[in-house]
Amino acid sequence: MNFKMMGRFVGQIIAVEAVLMLPALGISFFSGEQAAVTGFLYTIAIMVALGGVLLLVCRKAGSIFGAREGMVCVGLSWFFLSLLGCLPFWFSKEIPHFVDALFETVSGFTTTGSSVLSNVEGLSKGLLYWRSFSHWVGGMGVLVFLLAIVPASGREKGFTMHLLRAESPGPDVGKLVPKMRQTATILYLIYIGLTVLDMIFLLLGGMPLFDAVCTAFGTAGTGGFGIKNDSMASYSPYIQNVCTVFMFLFGVNFSCYYLLLLGQVKNIFRDEELRMYVGLALVTALLIVLDIRHMYGSLGETIRHATFQVSSIMTTTGFATTDFDQWPSFSKGLLMLLMVVGACAGSTGGGFKCSRVLLLLKNLRRNIRQSLNPRKVQLVRNNGKTVDEKIISNTSSYLAAYVVIIVVSFLLISLDGFSTGTNFTAVLACFNNIGPGLEAVGPSCNFGAYSDLSKIVLILDMLAGRLEIFPILALFSRGTWRGR
Amino acid sequence: MNFKMMGRFVGQIIAVEAVLMLPALGISFFSGEQAAVTGFLYTIAIMVALGGVLLLVCRKAGSIFGAREGMVCVGLSWFFLSLLGCLPFWFSKEIPHFVDALFETVSGFTTTGSSVLSNVEGLSKGLLYWRSFSHWVGGMGVLVFLLAIVPASGREKGFTMHLLRAESPGPDVGKLVPKMRQTATILYLIYIGLTVLDMIFLLLGGMPLFDAVCTAFGTAGTGGFGIKNDSMASYSPYIQNVCTVFMFLFGVNFSCYYLLLLGQVKNIFRDEELRMYVGLALVTALLIVLDIRHMYGSLGETIRHATFQVSSIMTTTGFATTDFDQWPSFSKGLLMLLMVVGACAGSTGGGFKCSRVLLLLKNLRRNIRQSLNPRKVQLVRNNGKTVDEKIISNTSSYLAAYVVIIVVSFLLISLDGFSTGTNFTAVLACFNNIGPGLEAVGPSCNFGAYSDLSKIVLILDMLAGRLEIFPILALFSRGTWRGR
Repeated sequence: MNFKMMGRFVGQIIAVEAVLMLPALGISFFSGEQAAVTGFLYTIAIMVALGGVLLLVCRKAGSIFGAREGMVCVGLSWFFLSLLGCLPFWFSKEIPHFVDALFETVSGFTTTGSSVLSNVEGLSKGLLYWRSFSHWVGGMGVLVFLLAIVPASGREKGFTMHLLRAESPGPDVGKLVPKMRQTATILYLIYIGLTVLDMIFLLLGGMPLFDAVCTAFGTAGTGGFGIKNDSMASYSPYIQNVCTVFMFLFGVNFSCYYLLLLGQVKNIFRDEELRMYVGLALVTALLIVLDIRHMYGSLGETIRHATFQVSSIMTTTGFATTDFDQWPSFSKGLLMLLMVVGACAGSTGGGFKCSRVLLLLKNLRRNIRQSLNPRKVQLVRNNGKTVDEKIISNTSSYLAAYVVIIVVSFLLISLDGFSTGTNFTAVLACFNNIGPGLEAVGPSCNFGAYSDLSKIVLILDMLAGRLEIFPILALFSRGTWRGR
Repeated sequence: MNFKMMGRFVGQIIAVEAVLMLPALGISFFSGEQAAVTGFLYTIAIMVALGGVLLLVCRKAGSIFGAREGMVCVGLSWFFLSLLGCLPFWFSKEIPHFVDALFETVSGFTTTGSSVLSNVEGLSKGLLYWRSFSHWVGGMGVLVFLLAIVPASGREKGFTMHLLRAESPGPDVGKLVPKMRQTATILYLIYIGLTVLDMIFLLLGGMPLFDAVCTAFGTAGTGGFGIKNDSMASYSPYIQNVCTVFMFLFGVNFSCYYLLLLGQVKNIFRDEELRMYVGLALVTALLIVLDIRHMYGSLGETIRHATFQVSSIMTTTGFATTDFDQWPSFSKGLLMLLMVVGACAGSTGGGFKCSRVLLLLKNLRRNIRQSLNPRKVQLVRNNGKTVDEKIISNTSSYLAAYVVIIVVSFLLISLDGFSTGTNFTAVLACFNNIGPGLEAVGPSCNFGAYSDLSKIVLILDMLAGRLEIFPILALFSRGTWRGR
């Protein structure tokens, strides 16, 4: 294990986080929020000290950097990111219990949006900003960001690739351009562009600047932290519809936008994952409209709530315009389906990802055909290309790990005695980085009632969900820490 | 497709079912149950006519018989078995609604044990017997039975193998002896021997003969239809403990008993699946005892209820001695885990099967190691032998199909408006061939409140669960019915 290189990398991440905290500090300062300012200052001091020591100690690192180091590096970075990021909440005593502060921060960075707070509006402006901004940072990935800004000189060839692989969502990480660093830059430029566009549309609807900025961060990262106690319910229909559209856009594979910039529109619409994503969203929205049409005044209002909730849950954002826990069982079942399926690979959304679902369904069809005609060799194809059997095998394993984590987490948090539906959807909501679940963790409730043990389980679930399981499992795997 | 051979085979199955119905007819006759006698007679008449026509029309069949025909044959046989087997309930008007009668019968043959009846004790003796006997027939499989008794002359070589493969549970069907027909005979002899032993132990506890026979059938097939409204709660602790032990024994891979008969005791205890089965049962029973110790008078009573329920749910039998829906969330969560894991491959139990869980966990570990050290080739081993990658791939696909079926069924039955916990456990209970679920389908309730659509969905789930998905999917697959 190349510990020094990992240490240097984590040091860089901490330094970046300190810089990213400055705007929040500024907001707190100008709003005269004394406790928050102190909290931020203490945190930044700790970050400078810790990051400085790491960078100093690990300045001379070896050059071997493999898949194993990549995984561990990503896992550790996110661990420190969360641990340090939660300190302002704790120091300022706005979230006095440490595990709660950690839960809230991990929920932010992993773009989950599950909250332990019953009164969000009670937070100071600086911390509200930091909370929403963590969505934006976590959405595209802070490592991707680092790779985009730090020069590549002196780095081992596989370094960037192994890190991007471990942090980016989806069964197979494609490069947009031959160089990984350029890919990271392009991704971030698209990300920034779309976020700014979202803000502009929100401002045009008369949303206050602070609200627009925070909402755009929560939308772009498909996070879901609202800055109001009723999430998005009190905003105008126009603003809600803007959110519906932009949440959906941020759930699309970003390589589609790159193709759009290159003018290859045809290739976008041929993409099988995008077709499934759009198709599934339309079908579920239609079914929900039919199921809940008696609950709202007009058809327009019904459609607005249905499309908003479908877009919010499927992209794993987690904003709400209505208490969907009051919806009929069938609609709730459809939302649970969307919770699991999730958004597209290569987007800021979480969940199992449409492309994995597609791949497993195709493999299932192949295996049924194969068992009917054992002598005929059949291949799995995606977008016209044959899929490598290794990717299929990894995706199948991903499903197994996914199920195991859900089962184990469900068992552990059921020690707290909540209902089956509450516990099951709490795990689904955290693990898939959505936010609200159903029943006692529904959109009008919060996760505060769970015990510390359960919160820690859910924190690990959120991290495992955001980093797609393997980097977190690798941290706890014996093989990782043994010499080669 | 070799339709004639399939027709002849289905004809034989129907003839066998007519013969198997005779004891029930006799019981009804001697108990003076007029309606039931008429019901059985009409049914047998229809069977003789239908079976006769099929055997006559299809007497000259081609000899090509592949995997495809095997699958379809098994699917069709079970379809006819259920459709004809439910007629006595319907004709006698003891279950006047046809879908209810079909549900009850499919639940019997698939060894599920889910019931639509609130008053089981209201059934006539003949029908109670037929209901429990269907568990015994379905447990080891009626095709296996047919293969064991009908001479193999004039049969295509692959015939027996393809049929056994399609009907027997587990990721890989092993032969005990080189000839499939002998294997089937040995399996049935062990099955009969254990069932008789169970009856003797029950009779020694003072159980009436009729109760002992029916209970032994329900135990042997890991079915779970009780003949009392409170399932097994009113029987003595001795009888309950006998059931605990025998349910557990019937969940063991029958090849272990064959090894026992051969005196190879060492090989039995080396079997990894058996170790997992025993270990998981002990651990969950212990955890449940700790969790529910405050609910019962003495430690002995707590242990009796915990072990009984663990044995019943894990083997997918579904008997109950207490209303475990009243247990704390953690214990209910553990039972849900057992519902999914299920019994051993090659037993009469259902569920996902311990061996599949083991295989997927090992494959997961292998893939994590592989991703940490991409250059090192790693293999999955079971009981010291390398596992064929094809079996791993099929098992992974099985998990995908398993999840898809649960999700789709859950959505469809949620149209009826029951709670998330009810719908989810209803699907788990039927698909894994267990019987009772939780909440509104808990051990003190029944499935009668669901709509016909939901019942049909659950009927298909029970069949898919018993036949391990692929034969049922094959029936609905376009590729099956196209020419080669």
